[in-house]
Amino acid sequence: MNPPQPPSTASSHASPAAPGGVTVWLTGLPSAGKTTLAHGLAEMLASREVPFQILDGDIMREYLTNDLGFSKEDRDTNVRRIGFVASLLAHQGIIVLCPVISPYRATRAEVRALHDPGRFFEVYIATPVEVCQERDVKGLYARARSGEITGMTGIDDPYEAPLDPELEVAAGTTSVGESVQLIWDALEARLSAC
Amino acid sequence: MNPPQPPSTASSHASPAAPGGVTVWLTGLPSAGKTTLAHGLAEMLASREVPFQILDGDIMREYLTNDLGFSKEDRDTNVRRIGFVASLLAHQGIIVLCPVISPYRATRAEVRALHDPGRFFEVYIATPVEVCQERDVKGLYARARSGEITGMTGIDDPYEAPLDPELEVAAGTTSVGESVQLIWDALEARLSAC
Repeated sequence: MNPPQPPSTASSHASPAAPGGVTVWLTGLPSAGKTTLAHGLAEMLASREVPFQILDGDIMREYLTNDLGFSKEDRDTNVRRIGFVASLLAHQGIIVLCPVISPYRATRAEVRALHDPGRFFEVYIATPVEVCQERDVKGLYARARSGEITGMTGIDDPYEAPLDPELEVAAGTTSVGESVQLIWDALEARLSAC
Repeated sequence: MNPPQPPSTASSHASPAAPGGVTVWLTGLPSAGKTTLAHGLAEMLASREVPFQILDGDIMREYLTNDLGFSKEDRDTNVRRIGFVASLLAHQGIIVLCPVISPYRATRAEVRALHDPGRFFEVYIATPVEVCQERDVKGLYARARSGEITGMTGIDDPYEAPLDPELEVAAGTTSVGESVQLIWDALEARLSAC
């Protein structure tokens, strides 16, 4: 279990926390399947008319993170900004889906601490690096191998796997549908316990 | 009336727009009364158990805008980031209160365009500069006059008053209570018309 967190920074500026809100933080290597699973979850939520918001790199880059590169400092800032926005939405009762590599343990812990207690649900998408390299959705592993890019998570930059995530999904051997169902079941159990 | 806007960038990544959401964008000179009115509105919303979020400089600076200074470009980036986060929350049915100087007309128009149609409610806090200088809540006017700071909105940097805001409040001659009531009445009329 994770220790209790201090109240969110946001709450002094907001109405009381609304029921049903949680940030589903999907962390893992590039090409682990984070975005695919986020969209699978979104479909499930849409069919149940549950309010949700996906916060991925694509939507964030245009307005919140377009000044950032790939240094450790910039990656951390990126993760913090997404986490802060997620914490505001989760406080308001929204299910926030965040497929974000977020390679560093300490930064993920910071993001957890921004949330109201119990509203950060960390899912480790534990796909082996060999599988990720084979998928290579964005061609990043190939570019890292050829030396075209450096500081690639899982190649020449570390990925610190969660030690105590709310859930771990073996997305290398579990199908997308099964993985989505696993996350949904765990999430439902968490939300009904609140 | 303002022209219809394109759908929000957010909507492809989110559940359908929930009823009751709107961004109340309080624009005006430093010390015009924006933050005071935002907090007055927040109290009114809290007593009615309406979900709200204040997005002011204080809450944004720590996580979203701590890299920004006071150049025109940085001010614009600040306004865009706050506006983007507001658009996500307003989409989800939240009343978002944004007391932000936001001196440039074009940038406010950009922020309006980020929102779902009808969910951006611009309130011009039209306090005369002489009154603002007298109040000088943060001592900024005094520092600008002494030459300690430059690029001060209303002194040596322009403030472009809205040409067609949803509401204009003469906060120099209207009391805080009356101003809050005025905004609330106009907002209620807008929300009940949606």
